[in-house]
Amino acid sequence: MQKAGAPYLLFLGDAQDVLSIKGCTGVKIWRPEKAVAQIRLPGCTQDLKLPDMTPAEAAAAGCKTMLLGVANAGGFVPDNWVPTIIEALEAGMDVMAGMHKRMADILAIAEAAKKHGRTLFDVRQPSQDFKVGKGYDRPGKRVLTVGTDCSLGKMFTSLALEKEMKARGMNATFRATGQSGIFIVGEGVAVDGVISDFIAGAIEWLCPDNDPDHWDVVEGQGSLFHPSFAGVSLGLLHGAQPDALIMCHEPNRPHMRGVPGRALPSLEECIALNEQMAHLTNPAARVIGLSANTSLMSDDDAHTWLEETSQRLGMPCCDSLRTGVGSLVDALAEI
Amino acid sequence: MQKAGAPYLLFLGDAQDVLSIKGCTGVKIWRPEKAVAQIRLPGCTQDLKLPDMTPAEAAAAGCKTMLLGVANAGGFVPDNWVPTIIEALEAGMDVMAGMHKRMADILAIAEAAKKHGRTLFDVRQPSQDFKVGKGYDRPGKRVLTVGTDCSLGKMFTSLALEKEMKARGMNATFRATGQSGIFIVGEGVAVDGVISDFIAGAIEWLCPDNDPDHWDVVEGQGSLFHPSFAGVSLGLLHGAQPDALIMCHEPNRPHMRGVPGRALPSLEECIALNEQMAHLTNPAARVIGLSANTSLMSDDDAHTWLEETSQRLGMPCCDSLRTGVGSLVDALAEI
Repeated sequence: MQKAGAPYLLFLGDAQDVLSIKGCTGVKIWRPEKAVAQIRLPGCTQDLKLPDMTPAEAAAAGCKTMLLGVANAGGFVPDNWVPTIIEALEAGMDVMAGMHKRMADILAIAEAAKKHGRTLFDVRQPSQDFKVGKGYDRPGKRVLTVGTDCSLGKMFTSLALEKEMKARGMNATFRATGQSGIFIVGEGVAVDGVISDFIAGAIEWLCPDNDPDHWDVVEGQGSLFHPSFAGVSLGLLHGAQPDALIMCHEPNRPHMRGVPGRALPSLEECIALNEQMAHLTNPAARVIGLSANTSLMSDDDAHTWLEETSQRLGMPCCDSLRTGVGSLVDALAEI
Repeated sequence: MQKAGAPYLLFLGDAQDVLSIKGCTGVKIWRPEKAVAQIRLPGCTQDLKLPDMTPAEAAAAGCKTMLLGVANAGGFVPDNWVPTIIEALEAGMDVMAGMHKRMADILAIAEAAKKHGRTLFDVRQPSQDFKVGKGYDRPGKRVLTVGTDCSLGKMFTSLALEKEMKARGMNATFRATGQSGIFIVGEGVAVDGVISDFIAGAIEWLCPDNDPDHWDVVEGQGSLFHPSFAGVSLGLLHGAQPDALIMCHEPNRPHMRGVPGRALPSLEECIALNEQMAHLTNPAARVIGLSANTSLMSDDDAHTWLEETSQRLGMPCCDSLRTGVGSLVDALAEI
């Protein structure tokens, strides 16, 4: 996809809870300079503490894209959002969304985009054609976040790594593979929406040949141990051809997400399998540290857990929010 | 997809070589009762030794579907095929094809199908929505063909297994996961065309709950060791939840298909990894035999190779053409 223009007008719709606007929240946390205004429909109870603007006001303030970083049950654009989307297009902004159903399939929206020469970024449906992956050795360094499960901090960890690496003067680029990450940086590949023949190829395209000292920080998806998504995780692992892996984990998770009754793998077996499978396209790949989401633990318990786990696994263990990812970047800097 | 009606009129187009019509050849080999006629365009050098018929003649002879089981460089329907496709629709037949580009996207074809109330089966683009896989234990028995590489006989072996199992009175169903297999049985899922989020889910749909004594014989795709397609192979393995695996192999292959320079895995490591990964959704899964494509060997060399490999691996090793798959079915009958 072409890169979405910034800054953004963040569309919160008629959201009723904080989770449903996480696509907008991510932008405000990780790219605050892109988050200049918000727009809310009647009944919206959420507030990102940004100036409320109409599309025309936002465009006048320099906004290039309206972001629908808000979830809707069913994954489609509801009728009452359409007028605001058309208004944004008329005001000269592009519109970006991550619904299961494409904005472009709604005739009035498609016509308005065409009439005003604007772009609709339906990021969940990759628009370009990919080639199949080949797995040939390519220059540049890559680190990939992997996990014991879905939704336990791979994107957050990847963005924290990029931030810390850049703060140290390292040459690093976050590579988004899911819709929230794409919203934040304005480009990427929603890998779970790619035709399965091209999973590895799409990731090879996403993080191509680069300078020898450059790091791509590739956002992982799913888990090799998840019965729904392991195929995506494996294709992503092969396409990323990572030099280093960061294992992401949530110590308190009762079962694999969406699959009650299925236990998470042990950290040891998850580390071993990820390294084993990664070796197909990079024989030097190894897990160099762990990033845990300890948000459900007390500060004392979290530090104890991280300390004990670090001793047991023989690698740095951090929580990107509680401790920062400095110890992981120390390890990356050695590669 | 709904099941394509049989028998078929086999469309050979203007094919110049035997490989390009393998989609039609497969039907003639495995379901000869479906292959009642052929139709060839000027310049076609291929001949399946079937009566040549026009679409109208074929329809009068009872044909329900015209099959475009012929490859075209570029993967699209060339202009000079369109009139015959429309003629078939006018004659009251459905049309089935496995191109990268859909017949349905060619306006004249789409309009003719609509006008005559016929169905276009673009089997490479799954038409239904799938759910994500869950990996829960389900009744019925399943055997999956896996491989050291792509294109070394998984479909052929699967069809040979189904035939032998049925000949012995076993309750067995071949489940097609690629276009050639779908042409043969008229239904299935082209798994490499599925959105990656749904690989495992599509296969769970393809071989659902069944009677305790029923065997689904699931056609495998790719290889866990192929850098282009391992994600598809893993999702298929998890979705199939196989009780038994058959390892497919070609002893003379110089490198992984499409990836010069990359060696094939050893049989031992390929067997071990497939069993290990299969255990996520079926802890009892095991490789019970090997099916080799020894077509490039002399008869003596082939029998020696099969004998020695059987001794080394401690399991039956066959060539579905040269020796038949009886020894594999013996092993399946024990499960």
